[in-house]
Amino acid sequence: MISERLRKQIEFLIEADKMKSLYRQTYIINDEKRSDSMRDMPADDIPLKRRENDAEHSFHLALFAMTLAEYANIPVDLLRVMKMVLIHDIVEIDAGDTYCYDTKGYESKREREEKAADRLFGLLPEDQEREYRSLWEEFEAMNTAESRFAAALDRMQPMLLNYTKNGISWQEHDISYGQVYDRNKHISHGSEALWEYMEEALSDALDRGIIKEK
Amino acid sequence: MISERLRKQIEFLIEADKMKSLYRQTYIINDEKRSDSMRDMPADDIPLKRRENDAEHSFHLALFAMTLAEYANIPVDLLRVMKMVLIHDIVEIDAGDTYCYDTKGYESKREREEKAADRLFGLLPEDQEREYRSLWEEFEAMNTAESRFAAALDRMQPMLLNYTKNGISWQEHDISYGQVYDRNKHISHGSEALWEYMEEALSDALDRGIIKEK
Repeated sequence: MISERLRKQIEFLIEADKMKSLYRQTYIINDEKRSDSMRDMPADDIPLKRRENDAEHSFHLALFAMTLAEYANIPVDLLRVMKMVLIHDIVEIDAGDTYCYDTKGYESKREREEKAADRLFGLLPEDQEREYRSLWEEFEAMNTAESRFAAALDRMQPMLLNYTKNGISWQEHDISYGQVYDRNKHISHGSEALWEYMEEALSDALDRGIIKEK
Repeated sequence: MISERLRKQIEFLIEADKMKSLYRQTYIINDEKRSDSMRDMPADDIPLKRRENDAEHSFHLALFAMTLAEYANIPVDLLRVMKMVLIHDIVEIDAGDTYCYDTKGYESKREREEKAADRLFGLLPEDQEREYRSLWEEFEAMNTAESRFAAALDRMQPMLLNYTKNGISWQEHDISYGQVYDRNKHISHGSEALWEYMEEALSDALDRGIIKEK
């Protein structure tokens, strides 16, 4: 007998598949040159320059978390950080992605995301709904060591992708050094060491002219 | 001063971006209908029916692990399971994906993957190289509670995607009920409960004619 509990959990996991079709503003680093893993795919299916989706972003964040945990300002419960980064963007299935330099979109963000959290985490059995919801609230509130570190990684990852990809997304959106600096400096609240690294990268981006000064 | 250690870790994380361009045989469930998150993407960039890549697969597995951990036959260290599923396919960056019904490809798989593990985990500082390598070896050997459960999820996830997507990949590769059954029955070594669920799904697939009997 399959339990109602397991059916609910599977329904949630199937719903989460939609993360794979939610595209962010950041580009993946490696252009999708035709490779062996694409042998059966029609040529039209392979864009050379492609934006990252939420599933890929979340995967990358979890890998960042386990690889860079030692740099958290305060020692963190790594399992909680990893759970947090894996579910923090699930609300975007209903609420959409809000580009981090879009101040107007940010006004309605909270309300849209609350509704999304009700429905999406509501697919789960009650105890897990409570757990995931509270991990998401913790991430949003950024007032624990875990959520500050998770939020730092969530800022660092797209910044690092952009930097490695020669500032492509900054140029497309006409974003300046100052904007990136101000938007991302709170990385230091989660990790001074990682912010030091990103600050250096950003200076290098300015020196190399892949981001404009003002 | 940015440490050599941190530079190595970042290099590994940037290399892992390639997971986003390694396509598997499984299709994502949700067709990529034009949505708001694709607003700036050229129409040609959006294939309707798309295969899943390794980053998405690994993300999904980690979410399966945290949501379904209670069904492991033997209680597992969830953090270790999550780390394991996140890194288990990294070797495919160099070694490529071997389709699970491709018996010929399986002959050279181990050798190709050993080399890949040397190079890829070798990007990391030594202590982390040892940790990730040993997690990968553990996953491959499938002789601990954690690796059996991780391997069960690794089989269950594509099977569930395929089932939900009306058997599309089974049909394309002309795979029969018996083949899927034999290839996946070891899910029960990691989780009897999850195998019971998948067995029921597979029977339903046969009843509905979305997989052939022989």
